Amino acid sequence: MGKQLTSRSADYAQWYNDLVIKGGLADYSAVRGCMVIKPYGYAIWEKMQQALDRMFKETGHQNAYFPLLIPKSFFSKEASHVDGFAKECAVVTHYRLKNDPSGKGVVVDPEAKLEEELIIRPTSETIIWNTYKDWITSYRDLPLLINQWANVVRWEMRTRLFLRTTEFLWQEGHTAHATREEAVAETAQMLDVYARFAEQFMGIPVVKGVKTAQERFAGAEETYCIEAMMQDGKALQAGTSHFLGQNFAKAFDVKFSSKENKLEHVWATSWGVSTRLIGALVMAHSDDDGLVLPPMLAPIQVVIVPIYKTEEQKQSVLAVASGITVELRKKSISVKLDDDDKQTPGWKFAEYELKGVPLRIAIGPRDVEQGTVEMARRDTREKASYSITDLATKAEHLLTQIQQNIFQKALDFRDSHIFRADTMEEFTRLLDEQPGFVYAHWDGTAETEQQIKEITKATIRCIPLGNPPESGACILSGKPSAQRVLFARAY
Amino acid sequence: MGKQLTSRSADYAQWYNDLVIKGGLADYSAVRGCMVIKPYGYAIWEKMQQALDRMFKETGHQNAYFPLLIPKSFFSKEASHVDGFAKECAVVTHYRLKNDPSGKGVVVDPEAKLEEELIIRPTSETIIWNTYKDWITSYRDLPLLINQWANVVRWEMRTRLFLRTTEFLWQEGHTAHATREEAVAETAQMLDVYARFAEQFMGIPVVKGVKTAQERFAGAEETYCIEAMMQDGKALQAGTSHFLGQNFAKAFDVKFSSKENKLEHVWATSWGVSTRLIGALVMAHSDDDGLVLPPMLAPIQVVIVPIYKTEEQKQSVLAVASGITVELRKKSISVKLDDDDKQTPGWKFAEYELKGVPLRIAIGPRDVEQGTVEMARRDTREKASYSITDLATKAEHLLTQIQQNIFQKALDFRDSHIFRADTMEEFTRLLDEQPGFVYAHWDGTAETEQQIKEITKATIRCIPLGNPPESGACILSGKPSAQRVLFARAY
Repeated sequence: MGKQLTSRSADYAQWYNDLVIKGGLADYSAVRGCMVIKPYGYAIWEKMQQALDRMFKETGHQNAYFPLLIPKSFFSKEASHVDGFAKECAVVTHYRLKNDPSGKGVVVDPEAKLEEELIIRPTSETIIWNTYKDWITSYRDLPLLINQWANVVRWEMRTRLFLRTTEFLWQEGHTAHATREEAVAETAQMLDVYARFAEQFMGIPVVKGVKTAQERFAGAEETYCIEAMMQDGKALQAGTSHFLGQNFAKAFDVKFSSKENKLEHVWATSWGVSTRLIGALVMAHSDDDGLVLPPMLAPIQVVIVPIYKTEEQKQSVLAVASGITVELRKKSISVKLDDDDKQTPGWKFAEYELKGVPLRIAIGPRDVEQGTVEMARRDTREKASYSITDLATKAEHLLTQIQQNIFQKALDFRDSHIFRADTMEEFTRLLDEQPGFVYAHWDGTAETEQQIKEITKATIRCIPLGNPPESGACILSGKPSAQRVLFARAY
Repeated sequence: MGKQLTSRSADYAQWYNDLVIKGGLADYSAVRGCMVIKPYGYAIWEKMQQALDRMFKETGHQNAYFPLLIPKSFFSKEASHVDGFAKECAVVTHYRLKNDPSGKGVVVDPEAKLEEELIIRPTSETIIWNTYKDWITSYRDLPLLINQWANVVRWEMRTRLFLRTTEFLWQEGHTAHATREEAVAETAQMLDVYARFAEQFMGIPVVKGVKTAQERFAGAEETYCIEAMMQDGKALQAGTSHFLGQNFAKAFDVKFSSKENKLEHVWATSWGVSTRLIGALVMAHSDDDGLVLPPMLAPIQVVIVPIYKTEEQKQSVLAVASGITVELRKKSISVKLDDDDKQTPGWKFAEYELKGVPLRIAIGPRDVEQGTVEMARRDTREKASYSITDLATKAEHLLTQIQQNIFQKALDFRDSHIFRADTMEEFTRLLDEQPGFVYAHWDGTAETEQQIKEITKATIRCIPLGNPPESGACILSGKPSAQRVLFARAY
């Protein structure tokens, strides 16, 4: 088939790249670090968007759109934010090109220099809080619950398709509240939304937790995250929800008059997930033959492959296949009937395995005679013959089972790859010898966190929510620790 | 209510701006020429997107996403394209800021200068055709039918909310075909999709036509457009569909091997509509009291305003109102039950008139006793009492009637404001004395077109499709002309 994938055991990173490229999800572009999201990959993103957008709206959020370009000075207004974001970014300095006077092509027109440079948004807190200043005057204007679907640019030095690209697509929620408590509750609510989305739609179990100060979003008082385990045991941060305190309200002077008629600074949150999730989806479930997509996010849930030799067989097989297609669509199942004569059934089988289509229905002349079809699951490779009576209901049940099984498999893998270490030696050995996360004691200092990272390349992924208290000694410094934290090497 | 609008007769341009700002559709931003699309305006855009996206998919198109940033040199590859687009654009020259050594804030790091400047896409033909080069090798790869939802930046000198902004949101379709005929058919098909969308969803009648060479898209062989009439008689180009010939295929060297195994350049189309359509929607239907939105694009189709004085009345009125809300939602009607005690019913009536909610249902204590409600149409201001029996069906019928009436009203206005002129004097008088379009003879030269524009500010909007042949003399040059063309002053 000419689309041989590198196996996971041979080279996990190459396997991932092969899958993304050969599975038709994305392509490299002519622009450093930027990718093209191809139709099949974008269709997954659309499914993600639909599910998330519905969850955002159900929790009272509205969408809006803020400018792509942010005045440079805005970044300097929030002290830690500028360090975290303004440095590695795309800077617009001019607004016009002109014909090259010395030859062909175009050059930047030096006369069209901007008075103040504009930054392509790496994240939108600054431009949004500068806008909220005009929108918020009274407690009656609060809470303000807004989300934006947008592209952002961060000038990453090392990029990987979906996981880390210079430009990426995401959503960013930015909410404003009258009280600290309400903002903290919003932060927690959106973390729950992300966790539910990851588990129910993506089929990926996640650990909910809070980041250490060092890993915190630049400008946040507290960053909450969901962390997922990939098949190589590395962690992938799949979503973050930030409690921003009054930092941005103070930086942009956003105050409201309270019910008691006092002027107070507004409390803020922000939260986001990005096209990086597509990378997580690929790495969490796929195998050496291709993608394995959970039915709830698969652009094609069922593919029907007709098998025939003679024209007469073709007609009878396609008649049955078309009937099944109609029945499945009535149940809102997305179906592709691949009746392309230019490819063989064998080629199609491999192609849809590569593409991760959850369920394949094959129909041949003998099936037509017997009133049966063959259904094959992508996740378990199980194949069986089914009577076509009430086939749509059977397919629906199988899709539900596949969704559950994909999650369960990822959960079993994750749970059997979480370890505990009590010494640096044990910690390093665990990280080196097998994939997985490690719970270990840490003395709570940024210095120790940094040293462990330098020695082992593992970072503290989070302090899990509801983490049980446990007295112990830091694996590096030996100083007292009140709880274990979750370490892993990460994407 | 403190939201007094300028009237159309007093100042049409100011009336429009008032509507956009006070109606909560958009806001100015801190960045020159860029606007913030507020939740109510964005909700209209989402409705437009849903309808258009469905129409694109029904005609076989898939969505994808290409990079925001385009290497400068790409623009020089297609000769006329560079003149049309590369000149007024945002140029990224650096990728890093650093702390200002002489004080606070950040400055551009001169060491982080890009070797080749990047342009923020003003339109994506170049980056997309550079990508298609890798995707197309054989006739089997064609047609390639792709659409992208994206933001673009064009450095406009004079901007107006929605109608002309530096950054705007749009969709751009980019298709590749094996033959000229197929590409021409695609161009026509997408023009039809746009016309159908404008008329059936936006309630705006449009003239379909072809642009003159001077008004053509930079890089196209032929530009088709739909032109709409606003209430001041000016034209607004509401969508364009371009037949690009082989221009971009030649510029980016995109060839395919045909069925006959010959290498040939690919044929192309591109087509787009933007958030400008929201401006058209506002200007086409609204009145001096606010927006008038067609039900098919209204974020809120029905608002329910409960009226009561005592707590007992409140309970019985809200019970009925809630029941109606449920019934309407069962019919997929989007309903807002405004039970906010902080505002009076009178304030709410004015507010939802301003917001253009198509249908208002008011329920008071006497209505509860009598089993009735009052329904008021936003378009005609007609109010009447209705029995609550089967109210959802009645509301549904009214919404259908409102949609039809809004279109019919715009159509009647348009058709009664299209004139014919046979001399420059008549032409100028018609344009100056009343709003409208004028059909007139033109000698077919760019010089005459330009001169007429300089004298009258009117441009040739299009040569309508199916335009009847008619011998005549050019209103300016007196030279022979075989058909009238459509002139108007335009947004």
